[in-house]
Amino acid sequence: MPVRYYEGPMRPLLVVFAGGASGPWRIQRIDAVIGESLPITERLAMLEGEGTRHPAEADWVLRGVTSNERYVNEAERAALTTRQAGLDRPEATCAALIPIRKSQTWWELTQEARREIFEERSRHIATSLQYLPAVARRLHHGRDLGEPFDFLTWFEYAPAYREAFEELVGKLRETEEWTYVEREVDIRLIRDGHP
Amino acid sequence: MPVRYYEGPMRPLLVVFAGGASGPWRIQRIDAVIGESLPITERLAMLEGEGTRHPAEADWVLRGVTSNERYVNEAERAALTTRQAGLDRPEATCAALIPIRKSQTWWELTQEARREIFEERSRHIATSLQYLPAVARRLHHGRDLGEPFDFLTWFEYAPAYREAFEELVGKLRETEEWTYVEREVDIRLIRDGHP
Repeated sequence: MPVRYYEGPMRPLLVVFAGGASGPWRIQRIDAVIGESLPITERLAMLEGEGTRHPAEADWVLRGVTSNERYVNEAERAALTTRQAGLDRPEATCAALIPIRKSQTWWELTQEARREIFEERSRHIATSLQYLPAVARRLHHGRDLGEPFDFLTWFEYAPAYREAFEELVGKLRETEEWTYVEREVDIRLIRDGHP
Repeated sequence: MPVRYYEGPMRPLLVVFAGGASGPWRIQRIDAVIGESLPITERLAMLEGEGTRHPAEADWVLRGVTSNERYVNEAERAALTTRQAGLDRPEATCAALIPIRKSQTWWELTQEARREIFEERSRHIATSLQYLPAVARRLHHGRDLGEPFDFLTWFEYAPAYREAFEELVGKLRETEEWTYVEREVDIRLIRDGHP
């Protein structure tokens, strides 16, 4: 079942990322890319739906909602829908959780100015499309929830695509869009029972 | 101090509308415009900021956040910023709280398709501009919070502008945009101590 890129249908889904002693994902490393990091912990659980707001015994909790699409146009949506893979593929034993917060300046731009930077100048969607379906992705919005991060992006990929994934992340970090990122943490994970 | 129309700067502000026995606004009437109504109650309090999520003794609570602008372009923002009035003017003793929910079909449209319907075809901003600064307005987003309403719009105006306000609301309800509204409640209020 394909998971939408910037999300589309249904009501928004609340997703809670809980770092702590339990969860099916082992944390390999937590890097502060821009600004303050998050505390090191062992495992991560990704919990979906209301009623999972405050998992017991978590060292930290990040929350976001899948929401309606903000920037994608019809042609881009069609390309994404055709190519993207869903979460939870058995071979996708590597994951990344990349929380970012954008600056006040970004949020004060109009919608059309943000779209212009995001895609026409930074090619966020066009670049990401090149890595589908190898890299599966789900975006979660936290800004309106009062969370410390505006976006939590969750990626899943097979070990063979580790290098390709580094390339994708590297390309995005060199864009004009990224000059508006004021905090970024990069969390890498391996599914339990895999090397 | 002017309040922004579709909101702009600063982090999003959580606003809680609590209907019950207390609050500075007396509820005159609650009408179900489309779909299910809300329970009749006496008064309304508008509470701002975190820590006010669940006011005690409320009959019902609606929550929303002021957020970044979704549709307004540069020219429209400039026009709004010049003309709009802030909340809490002493003469603005009439208020309306209009919670609406839009359909799944609306939320599955791309951003550009929504903008096209919202402004190019329904003239939501252009029409609203004609009623500034008499009608002050603040928009709150609830969809990503898992609330029953996608938007809570709060309006304040002086008694002399009652008819003009009915005209504005009437015009908006006749637009193509409104064909996507699947639930709408219209709550009218008077500031305590006023007729």
